[in-house]
Amino acid sequence: MVQDDCIFCKMVVGEIPVTKIYEDEVALAFLDIGPLSDGHTLVILKQHFEKLHDCPAELLGDVASRLGRIAKAVAEGMESDAYNVLCNNGRAAGQLVNHVHFHIIPRNFDDELFGAWPSYKYKESEAEKIAEKIRRNL
Amino acid sequence: MVQDDCIFCKMVVGEIPVTKIYEDEVALAFLDIGPLSDGHTLVILKQHFEKLHDCPAELLGDVASRLGRIAKAVAEGMESDAYNVLCNNGRAAGQLVNHVHFHIIPRNFDDELFGAWPSYKYKESEAEKIAEKIRRNL
Repeated sequence: MVQDDCIFCKMVVGEIPVTKIYEDEVALAFLDIGPLSDGHTLVILKQHFEKLHDCPAELLGDVASRLGRIAKAVAEGMESDAYNVLCNNGRAAGQLVNHVHFHIIPRNFDDELFGAWPSYKYKESEAEKIAEKIRRNL
Repeated sequence: MVQDDCIFCKMVVGEIPVTKIYEDEVALAFLDIGPLSDGHTLVILKQHFEKLHDCPAELLGDVASRLGRIAKAVAEGMESDAYNVLCNNGRAAGQLVNHVHFHIIPRNFDDELFGAWPSYKYKESEAEKIAEKIRRNL
């Protein structure tokens, strides 16, 4: 369950120290040492899985069920009720540590994190074709 | 459970059409009509809760336990194994619809979504003070 070369696994077993927020038998939460905002917290499953879709559904549910309580404490502690919960999967998505983790990032209106939200529209009938490609893999 | 003025609740009951990816008794997944990348999918709990920390832990676990399977299908359908799972809470965090939803956003190395990751470091002893503020609210 513990990968020798994984820094998050080393945090779970206490080989690398963390500023701990929360711990139980399933999950560990600690401050990100490279925060985007004060209170930026990481929540990890203690077991090692690389990506979200590698986690068994039940374990994913177990760790996620803790996210609300931890996020609320982060938001209240940082006196902002706005926050992002972000799980990056794969290097192209910004995942730097290959052990599934959820960022809880406190936000404020003037923080200018993440920049724009460059959304676009599908051309007619394109959405249904894309949806069919995805549904085929469910 | 259904809020009259909530567009996601209207999607759940079929009053507003969606390009459906997945549905069961707990969750509904559909294509975001304003995608950041092709296949950008939203996963929502059918019950109405405004923010992640408003959801009962068990329901949050229920919906999250579906995220891995849906994300895998999105990634495979879009032929990229990189994706972000993002839940924005509060207007300052980019939440536009006040019904908890998880974005699954397929990513590629050259897509330039989200721009920089402007992390910084805490000054000495600052992290522990911040952690204590959060832990006090757990």
